[in-house]
Amino acid sequence: MKGIVLSAEWAPRPGYEVSEFERTTKKAITGSSIWRHPRPALRDVEEPQPGPRDVLIEVKAIGICGSDIHFCETDTEGYMLYPGLTRFPQVIGHEFSGRIVEIGKEVRDLCVGDPVTAEEMLWCGRCFSCRIGVPNHCEYLEELGFTVQGAMTRYIAVEDRFVWPITSIVEQRGDEEAAWEAGALVEPTGVSYLAMFVRSQGFKPGSTVVVYGAGPIGLAAISLAEAAGAGRIVAFESLESRRRLAKAAGADAVYDPAALSREGTQPWQAVMDLTGGRGAQMHVEAAGVPTRTVPQMERALAVDGKIVIIGRAAERVPMYLEALQVRGSQLFGSQGHAGHSVFPNVIQLMASGRLDMRKIITHRFTLAQGEEALRQALSREGGKVMLHTA
Amino acid sequence: MKGIVLSAEWAPRPGYEVSEFERTTKKAITGSSIWRHPRPALRDVEEPQPGPRDVLIEVKAIGICGSDIHFCETDTEGYMLYPGLTRFPQVIGHEFSGRIVEIGKEVRDLCVGDPVTAEEMLWCGRCFSCRIGVPNHCEYLEELGFTVQGAMTRYIAVEDRFVWPITSIVEQRGDEEAAWEAGALVEPTGVSYLAMFVRSQGFKPGSTVVVYGAGPIGLAAISLAEAAGAGRIVAFESLESRRRLAKAAGADAVYDPAALSREGTQPWQAVMDLTGGRGAQMHVEAAGVPTRTVPQMERALAVDGKIVIIGRAAERVPMYLEALQVRGSQLFGSQGHAGHSVFPNVIQLMASGRLDMRKIITHRFTLAQGEEALRQALSREGGKVMLHTA
Amino acid sequence: MKGIVLSAEWAPRPGYEVSEFERTTKKAITGSSIWRHPRPALRDVEEPQPGPRDVLIEVKAIGICGSDIHFCETDTEGYMLYPGLTRFPQVIGHEFSGRIVEIGKEVRDLCVGDPVTAEEMLWCGRCFSCRIGVPNHCEYLEELGFTVQGAMTRYIAVEDRFVWPITSIVEQRGDEEAAWEAGALVEPTGVSYLAMFVRSQGFKPGSTVVVYGAGPIGLAAISLAEAAGAGRIVAFESLESRRRLAKAAGADAVYDPAALSREGTQPWQAVMDLTGGRGAQMHVEAAGVPTRTVPQMERALAVDGKIVIIGRAAERVPMYLEALQVRGSQLFGSQGHAGHSVFPNVIQLMASGRLDMRKIITHRFTLAQGEEALRQALSREGGKVMLHTA
Amino acid sequence: MKGIVLSAEWAPRPGYEVSEFERTTKKAITGSSIWRHPRPALRDVEEPQPGPRDVLIEVKAIGICGSDIHFCETDTEGYMLYPGLTRFPQVIGHEFSGRIVEIGKEVRDLCVGDPVTAEEMLWCGRCFSCRIGVPNHCEYLEELGFTVQGAMTRYIAVEDRFVWPITSIVEQRGDEEAAWEAGALVEPTGVSYLAMFVRSQGFKPGSTVVVYGAGPIGLAAISLAEAAGAGRIVAFESLESRRRLAKAAGADAVYDPAALSREGTQPWQAVMDLTGGRGAQMHVEAAGVPTRTVPQMERALAVDGKIVIIGRAAERVPMYLEALQVRGSQLFGSQGHAGHSVFPNVIQLMASGRLDMRKIITHRFTLAQGEEALRQALSREGGKVMLHTA
Repeated sequence: MKGIVLSAEWAPRPGYEVSEFERTTKKAITGSSIWRHPRPALRDVEEPQPGPRDVLIEVKAIGICGSDIHFCETDTEGYMLYPGLTRFPQVIGHEFSGRIVEIGKEVRDLCVGDPVTAEEMLWCGRCFSCRIGVPNHCEYLEELGFTVQGAMTRYIAVEDRFVWPITSIVEQRGDEEAAWEAGALVEPTGVSYLAMFVRSQGFKPGSTVVVYGAGPIGLAAISLAEAAGAGRIVAFESLESRRRLAKAAGADAVYDPAALSREGTQPWQAVMDLTGGRGAQMHVEAAGVPTRTVPQMERALAVDGKIVIIGRAAERVPMYLEALQVRGSQLFGSQGHAGHSVFPNVIQLMASGRLDMRKIITHRFTLAQGEEALRQALSREGGKVMLHTA
Repeated sequence: MKGIVLSAEWAPRPGYEVSEFERTTKKAITGSSIWRHPRPALRDVEEPQPGPRDVLIEVKAIGICGSDIHFCETDTEGYMLYPGLTRFPQVIGHEFSGRIVEIGKEVRDLCVGDPVTAEEMLWCGRCFSCRIGVPNHCEYLEELGFTVQGAMTRYIAVEDRFVWPITSIVEQRGDEEAAWEAGALVEPTGVSYLAMFVRSQGFKPGSTVVVYGAGPIGLAAISLAEAAGAGRIVAFESLESRRRLAKAAGADAVYDPAALSREGTQPWQAVMDLTGGRGAQMHVEAAGVPTRTVPQMERALAVDGKIVIIGRAAERVPMYLEALQVRGSQLFGSQGHAGHSVFPNVIQLMASGRLDMRKIITHRFTLAQGEEALRQALSREGGKVMLHTA
Repeated sequence: MKGIVLSAEWAPRPGYEVSEFERTTKKAITGSSIWRHPRPALRDVEEPQPGPRDVLIEVKAIGICGSDIHFCETDTEGYMLYPGLTRFPQVIGHEFSGRIVEIGKEVRDLCVGDPVTAEEMLWCGRCFSCRIGVPNHCEYLEELGFTVQGAMTRYIAVEDRFVWPITSIVEQRGDEEAAWEAGALVEPTGVSYLAMFVRSQGFKPGSTVVVYGAGPIGLAAISLAEAAGAGRIVAFESLESRRRLAKAAGADAVYDPAALSREGTQPWQAVMDLTGGRGAQMHVEAAGVPTRTVPQMERALAVDGKIVIIGRAAERVPMYLEALQVRGSQLFGSQGHAGHSVFPNVIQLMASGRLDMRKIITHRFTLAQGEEALRQALSREGGKVMLHTA
Repeated sequence: MKGIVLSAEWAPRPGYEVSEFERTTKKAITGSSIWRHPRPALRDVEEPQPGPRDVLIEVKAIGICGSDIHFCETDTEGYMLYPGLTRFPQVIGHEFSGRIVEIGKEVRDLCVGDPVTAEEMLWCGRCFSCRIGVPNHCEYLEELGFTVQGAMTRYIAVEDRFVWPITSIVEQRGDEEAAWEAGALVEPTGVSYLAMFVRSQGFKPGSTVVVYGAGPIGLAAISLAEAAGAGRIVAFESLESRRRLAKAAGADAVYDPAALSREGTQPWQAVMDLTGGRGAQMHVEAAGVPTRTVPQMERALAVDGKIVIIGRAAERVPMYLEALQVRGSQLFGSQGHAGHSVFPNVIQLMASGRLDMRKIITHRFTLAQGEEALRQALSREGGKVMLHTA
């Protein structure tokens, strides 16, 4: 079968000490310090053989994630920008949906023919973190499309405990094609869901929610805020095309920070104006530039406000913690999408029609056009780029 | 000015021991044991004089509450059905909106001209409950339209700390007439909001919410479940007119329990069928018949499910607590609507357009038609009955 | 090796329909409807062979649990009292500690020589409940000493993910013999811990905690309330020997309900007196007679009080839910002890010296005296009965 | 009567813009920008006249708080170090206990003769923050000993809703003198209690709690961690005398960061060593130097760990938010001690004997020795300095 394979050179940066783990497993813990000259290409790959607890899924739709983009981008020395755990060459892609075509003999609760999606984080279920109920912090994590074969291909084998049926979307929405796309959007939506509703324990309906950054994760945050009864949703985003998507996703007010600045207004002031000086109950960092966004959040906190950090950035943010004391506020760091009913809840929200993430898809390609699709995603214009296998 | 005054005879039932408190204050703690032959009538009443911390409000719209109805209903011996704290004769009515026409000299944060609504529970702010942050359990409670003058009249004086502006509804919805009605619906909506989101700490978006009873409180619960991102909303209601309202309020599935029963199905089975045997995360008792509804809830609990009791009933419910153990579930009792940001959150939800409670209004009358309006409400056909002063 | 084996006759009660699952697995879902003439005996049993993910544990100490007692008790027709999932003949015993003597080749994070204890609930890690983080409600549960070989013997094999080191108890308490007993008490303590701190989310330090029943689970609840900063601990218990243990475990006030009753006082009144009429913030049902205890709890609820149900009883409890509304209170059903950091937290509490569960041990026997030990436990006089293998 | 009066010169710093509020009320919002040449002195002051809702309290014991010390300290230009809301000259002192000698005619629930303490924060009960249940963020706050007469004198008048009986301490501990001191320690203990158990929602019993700084607030945090069932308490403190107090208060391990550093170890490493690399569940900043302490906390977070900020510092802390994401952790800012059952819970903990804050008192003086007492406190050697009126 054909698949989009990311290849790269194992070329540890001078001075980077390759660990024993890295040497034996050929997995880079800090990808950006080892992988050089990455390039994606449509290539022949072997069909996976499902084990006794695996299901074999015929892939239908695959979304391109920010990390897929970072795989392809390099610094001036040719090193990959993506900083995390990776093993190449690898079929990439982890936001996907498909239909089960075969099941291992120990598989439970799933059948051939089921339309499904899957968690990307393959938590071990046995380490301390997994045992105490925080699988997003698994100590022996494997990741679909990062350390094991991903979904930008025809078939993928996944252990049953990571697979979730999307039958309810198909049945309640009554449109199978749409369901494949919705299914492929469960994982990125789950990232925002975990951050907002699990890690940060949500907001009271009627609250003001501010989202910084309207890429796919920020758009998911906006859509979820809309679905979950925010009283007011404010978004900040530099790109015009994404501001339009933010509006469509449900934001009540959307600003270009640069334009605001030209008028002598800072984002925090806009939030204070909209809220009559009361501030916002939840602030979501989905822009990946916390040094710029968090200081704005600090100045527009409602009493008992929440700052939710989803975007990643390897930098120190100068925080004025007094602001969090004076406003009785808190900050939550979040990563992942696994466990905690995230997948079944997002799926049911989509099935109900109360969450339509397909609004954020702006470009569609076939799998054969995968390289072109990645180039489109690299431009960062628009929202989600979606691949279809057929 | 004219007002709807509820009069009744102070006639303690034989055997009922009138307490010292009742004797001195002329407030009945157990209204149904003291008040006899109640009757509402449009009568002349004195205009209230606002104190230094009061605002004087020109009333615009007033909803009729279930307790207003219970004031007028009697048992076979002529005793009032309403069992709670009351002092008659009294201008009744406590779900209202209006415009501030005068403010006392110590009033803060409110201005003449502001469109407002008010909490019905006049918590003292000084007792143990108030000091620890649970004003709905105030030990020295007064209640608008129960122990002090209510809103079914032209003017009402209320202390500033119970009054909430609805300016955002007027401005964001752009329809002042609609805003008066929305404002008058904040209080009953707040009863369901407190129960579902404060007392019971809400549900995760995507959850199944089941509501028993589609009177105004149940309809508010359905509307709030819809606004707050339930993944599936199921309602049970005997009256056809109310089942239609339940649908309009956002329920995905609405059943007549009697009709179900004729088909050999019980409510719990319907819930289990809809959820693929997983059960519902939240069950709201808004029917006031817990002996009939709670046993159904027990059998359709999701793991970590919640039973939320809003409806009142002076009866013991035979609960199978094993069911709550096996399903790792919990039950929450709720009363009131005060404090906890309930009013500002409900108001902002309405202002945002994400909650439109006006859908549940089925009958509108003028204040002068108040007696007729009460008769309509007494019939329990339809949803909310709304009075307008102009 | 020798072990205490519980044997019983597979003799389904007339009218009980044996399910397909029961027929094929030889596990009784409702033990009390199938098993007849149970008898424990010290017998030869085969040594277990650890699988690749198992550790082999040399057992050191084993506590006798209430369910072990119910295995041996019968009704008038000779049927076993224990109502749950069971497969006999079986080596019973599941509250234990021991030392690892062998590890399978895939075992992680554990070494030969480690002193350990283990969860009794062998959750599958793959069903819906396990995947959403509620392993105590696993759909494919196996149980040590119920459906698979238990610990009243020399060796037991357990999968690594259920095994927890008690090294910190040995090191910080500095007494290995004491550590074996402490380790064997982690599981029953965990039952109360899960109920009080996970399911019910604990109490604020300084709260009043009332415990009904001072058997081992109630004594664990008292000890935990003491360790976790209750401001007042009240216990109700009929047996004098257990009232003494309740005092030793940390209860500030301990009552015999029958004696109270002879003085014309009910338990709820005693609680109200002690709290100056404010009521208790947490009420723990550990007596297994909710029809008697819950009505007492209802009348002594603090505002925002909690009722925590641990004791099991297959009966309906007539609850006055109004009481939970008027007091803004809640009820939590609990079962199990798995997941949620329960084991590591209980172990660390013991290691710190802030929780000493050994106080509740009143009888010690050797494994060879197991039958005598069970007879002692059957008398229900005293606290925990502990077996030692050496 | 005599009282310790703090006088200072109203001398706004060049460039500081005195606000309208400051001009009219003579309250400085930023004390350190207005008050110069502060000096405390024992002087004659007028006896307070209790209003209708006030109680008059004969003061028995008064603790010296860090802010009292900051009142007396100045920068190189003679400006007061204390940065907050203040109105001088003022009788200072706000950590106190005493006996009610007179009550206003509207006073509820309090009697002449009651031993009591009081909240220092006089929340208005009417502003938005108070109405939504967060009185520590009152918009119209007055403060005992800051903006109104404090307790370092013979009599103080306080509105009933801020006053809490300590009768239970007297009765249950059986030592009135000790109860006066305990009562005077409720307020500072409440600051740590609010931060740890209300704002941050506590820790699960058995957790590791790390406290940075062992001044009175840090010592209260340690004592509360001990009372509430921490599994391990670690403290970092530079002063030897305070390290001894930390041990006495219950810390299991106490380090001098400088000494650690000389051994090449950083605090975070010490925490990781103690916890077997798992990190600590709660980290309390009570040193007031977050730029130094928070980076240590970030590196020793347990998964789902909490950072609790109590110490104040007008500086930006360079935070590595990735650390909070990778560890699924959170940060809480806290200020105050009012509301949320803090006072009654701390009092009951003390009454039960499970919290003995008197251990942290190292110096005792009479009121007449107040100036000397302040000098002692200024040295920062030792723990709490306590004044007695008799």
